[in-house]
Amino acid sequence: MSNQRIILLAHGSSDKRWCDTFEALAEPTLQAVSNSSIAYMELAEPSLDAVIHEGVAAGASEFTIVPLFLAAGRHLRKDVPAMIEGLERTTGARIKLSAPIGENPLLGQAIKDVVALQLDQSTDD
Amino acid sequence: MSNQRIILLAHGSSDKRWCDTFEALAEPTLQAVSNSSIAYMELAEPSLDAVIHEGVAAGASEFTIVPLFLAAGRHLRKDVPAMIEGLERTTGARIKLSAPIGENPLLGQAIKDVVALQLDQSTDD
Repeated sequence: MSNQRIILLAHGSSDKRWCDTFEALAEPTLQAVSNSSIAYMELAEPSLDAVIHEGVAAGASEFTIVPLFLAAGRHLRKDVPAMIEGLERTTGARIKLSAPIGENPLLGQAIKDVVALQLDQSTDD
Repeated sequence: MSNQRIILLAHGSSDKRWCDTFEALAEPTLQAVSNSSIAYMELAEPSLDAVIHEGVAAGASEFTIVPLFLAAGRHLRKDVPAMIEGLERTTGARIKLSAPIGENPLLGQAIKDVVALQLDQSTDD
């Protein structure tokens, strides 16, 4: 585990508010999990490429990417695996792609809690 | 509250696996919250348009849309508000757009729990 790194991968956007939301989403994980960081697939920094190269330069050889996506579409089925293949080839690192967070039942429970909270607030109006 | 309906709005995709994931994500909410349903912005059924018209036909006049999105991009800032404006005009319903679920801190906590679980599993390998 010592040279293992966790990368929370978000889609990215040129809109700073989009990235702010993902940084807030990642914050509890980044606080709790050592050697974890956020990276963006496209349109924002730091890129996945930069985070992997930085990790390898610091001595890491194993990475686990946890996609901050609710479901797997073309990006997670095609684009990210292709990026990983290229990065493994150029760096020699082992990079594992986890399922998107939305495939874990904990997310469905959290959504239920969010909706319940919003309904409580709306009845106070 | 009696004629209020909750719509969990997902992006939609022609890939059935994408929709299956969102249906699983929505399931705990649909079970817990009466008069709630899922709808898709595009590329999948039921559409937002269909769910609103169906609700209005059944006597509902107020809808709250909770976006099953981690962050607000162009879709939630432009496309969905435009759809809502058109639907309010044609149906007379009041349609409120909530913040995307990812803007609630509960999601960040759930993500931390998912990552912690995945790390536990990977150390068992």
